[in-house]
Amino acid sequence: MKIAITGGGGMVGRKLAERLALDGVICGREITGLTLYDVVEPTAPFGAKFPVKLRTGDLPATGQTELVLADWPDVIFHLAAIVSGEAELDFDKGYRINLEGTHRLLEGIRHRYAGSARKPRLVFASSIAVFGAPFPERIGDEFVSAPLTSYGTQKAIGELLLNDYTRKGFVDGIGIRLPTICIRPGKPNKAASGFFSNICREPLAGHEAVLPVSEDVMHWHASPRAGVGFLLRAAEISSEEVGARRCLSMPGLAVTVGEQIEALRKVAGEAVVKRIRRERDPFIEKIVAGWPRAFDAKRAATLGFRGDANFEAIVRIHIEDELAGKIA
Amino acid sequence: MKIAITGGGGMVGRKLAERLALDGVICGREITGLTLYDVVEPTAPFGAKFPVKLRTGDLPATGQTELVLADWPDVIFHLAAIVSGEAELDFDKGYRINLEGTHRLLEGIRHRYAGSARKPRLVFASSIAVFGAPFPERIGDEFVSAPLTSYGTQKAIGELLLNDYTRKGFVDGIGIRLPTICIRPGKPNKAASGFFSNICREPLAGHEAVLPVSEDVMHWHASPRAGVGFLLRAAEISSEEVGARRCLSMPGLAVTVGEQIEALRKVAGEAVVKRIRRERDPFIEKIVAGWPRAFDAKRAATLGFRGDANFEAIVRIHIEDELAGKIA
Repeated sequence: MKIAITGGGGMVGRKLAERLALDGVICGREITGLTLYDVVEPTAPFGAKFPVKLRTGDLPATGQTELVLADWPDVIFHLAAIVSGEAELDFDKGYRINLEGTHRLLEGIRHRYAGSARKPRLVFASSIAVFGAPFPERIGDEFVSAPLTSYGTQKAIGELLLNDYTRKGFVDGIGIRLPTICIRPGKPNKAASGFFSNICREPLAGHEAVLPVSEDVMHWHASPRAGVGFLLRAAEISSEEVGARRCLSMPGLAVTVGEQIEALRKVAGEAVVKRIRRERDPFIEKIVAGWPRAFDAKRAATLGFRGDANFEAIVRIHIEDELAGKIA
Repeated sequence: MKIAITGGGGMVGRKLAERLALDGVICGREITGLTLYDVVEPTAPFGAKFPVKLRTGDLPATGQTELVLADWPDVIFHLAAIVSGEAELDFDKGYRINLEGTHRLLEGIRHRYAGSARKPRLVFASSIAVFGAPFPERIGDEFVSAPLTSYGTQKAIGELLLNDYTRKGFVDGIGIRLPTICIRPGKPNKAASGFFSNICREPLAGHEAVLPVSEDVMHWHASPRAGVGFLLRAAEISSEEVGARRCLSMPGLAVTVGEQIEALRKVAGEAVVKRIRRERDPFIEKIVAGWPRAFDAKRAATLGFRGDANFEAIVRIHIEDELAGKIA
């Protein structure tokens, strides 16, 4: 199996590539090549027993999708995107990368595989940002996509295109709406959602973190490991089982900030939890109030997507995968 | 008020232009100019007391939106589209006109009105084709857009773009999902939905018509007069009242073919109804089975959109507006 990943240099792309290198197989078959594509040169995963090609470029520019598709990949993970905050600040860039880039990739696949009986599986990383308030208590599989950001709009359009290109037989697409990935490794960033990760990651590393919202704020989370698991499951599920609606909300965990902190206390102790400083930020509180809180992800569960067991498990995954088992 | 209509040469565009010429006002204010734009030269409406400009072109081509926007319209009706059947047969043309054309018009408005405090009202003719089976008994305002045609996909994307451009303050958009327009004037065409109109229009004109489906097939209809009424209401409703979700399913009539025929009998008599010949067509039956049957268009009703009273009224409107009151 040949694999390609757009956005192969991002956090999820790197974790996915590392997992592919570790497993050596996908969909029960041997991996024989991997192309990582990103705007800056991605890093080849350690220990891969298959050839890895690193490619850089600007996805919507002419000739770029050919770089992604050069080796006739059987599975393409389309993770490349301008993130939510940047797409909101730079309207043209968001539409260019997130909408035009996705549309061009679909067109590239359509034309390159036009003569092939078997079409590649395209796994599209969509987002719960396709939904906008007001919400029901839990967002079901038939709830309207009414995004309140340009990023969410671009992802929702990507989903519609993916459905139509799949229906026409140009590609075999599956879109998965990832929950907020938590605990996100790396440095704190200024994303409004950053604190969900910061309040766990920073205290575990011995640093202070600021909690800008009330403890009863609920949100929808998945660990990086679960996120990679969703992508791999999306690569292998049977097209027939999915049917005409190709995009699915992934099973996350609906937990409050208070429950996050309680899980952190159970796993890492009171000293770690004490590193969280409470300082309400009305600006962030207002943004977060418009975000999805919880889903009823029935279809994904039926199709064998498995989320994290509980938030304690998410904390333990971070300690294992990012901290080599050690808490500061 | 300056008005522009894309697709001004189509059936709905012509009826809208005629109504504007008759009324002389829109949103309670005098109409001072009308631009009709279409791919073939549109006809100026009879008796207009304001200047009418006729413009032709290919909407997604460079410089075309400037023709539509030249007179700084206060209200733009965006009706131009490749119809469902053609968009399904010619994939590229459908995306070019229905997606790229709409996106370019939004971009054109964004840039032309960038310095203006007041943005034009853009009324976008969407369609119930944004919905795809399986459906609930009645499709509510929060039901997912999961189209099963390229046309429906392009309209659903147009809705998402309209929402986002409106949210960003680039335009003041309202999208309305028109029911199937019935009784459609003109010649019978090969559209799969054609029979809903044919079985009324042709018998009323003294001709035979073929009914290819069972009498218990239910569908969602609005008269051409109601359709024009929806467009005019969409031009005047308050932006604040609509809120963030700018696209609305219009109030149609959910009637079975049997109820259509019964209404025709009541209005026009048994001799007319006898001109309907029953000849089942499994191909058409299968297509129609995937179409929406009925809606619960609560938001539109709250916002003052008014549909037809019943199917007898629809038959009478056709006799008045198309047959000068005379039944063959």
